[in-house]
Amino acid sequence: MSKQQLLEERSGGCCTPIMVAALDSAAAGEGAAVFKALSDPIRLRLMSIIASAGKEVCVCDITGYFDVSAPTISHHLRVLREAGLVDCERRGTWVYYWPLPARLTWVSTLLSVPAAV
Amino acid sequence: MSKQQLLEERSGGCCTPIMVAALDSAAAGEGAAVFKALSDPIRLRLMSIIASAGKEVCVCDITGYFDVSAPTISHHLRVLREAGLVDCERRGTWVYYWPLPARLTWVSTLLSVPAAV
Repeated sequence: MSKQQLLEERSGGCCTPIMVAALDSAAAGEGAAVFKALSDPIRLRLMSIIASAGKEVCVCDITGYFDVSAPTISHHLRVLREAGLVDCERRGTWVYYWPLPARLTWVSTLLSVPAAV
Repeated sequence: MSKQQLLEERSGGCCTPIMVAALDSAAAGEGAAVFKALSDPIRLRLMSIIASAGKEVCVCDITGYFDVSAPTISHHLRVLREAGLVDCERRGTWVYYWPLPARLTWVSTLLSVPAAV
């Protein structure tokens, strides 16, 4: 993903912080689903590896970080993708992942503590 | 909790965003535990009610928001407290809750998308 794409993704994410307004049931369900995807230590670390890489990450470069099987890593990556936190594309033998900053911005803003509080 | 206490709490929370650096196992475990506490729709909504109130919230004013039993609400509040997201104090018959902004700031910063990305 290019820097321009990252910027466009990021600008799409916005919401009201929970310190400003309480969530309704629908928003709470949507937010909880994202936090559930981040609630596993392996998934959160996977997310951080993909998010901090600054470029697309080949799944072949990810498995070495963890002492778990490749299918387990694939399962966790699928959960992150279904939560809208990463996307991927297969090219030849390997699958490449990149972060979706809009989703990160959305949950980050949700939990932010406004200066006026 | 007073505004001053809120400000002091908030200043204590800081970390490096996952878009800047990957997490090690210990930090991933700590973050995942907080996200697990927020991964249930009732708990996330509870958290938002307490966070947005702008004052301490009596548990007697919380139960009316939800179609679940008081013991279930108490269980969810305990999970939020154990995750460091809220604190509480019993006064007479009722327990009063307030948010801990340092913890919110910590996870919000963790997921933030720096402008330089």
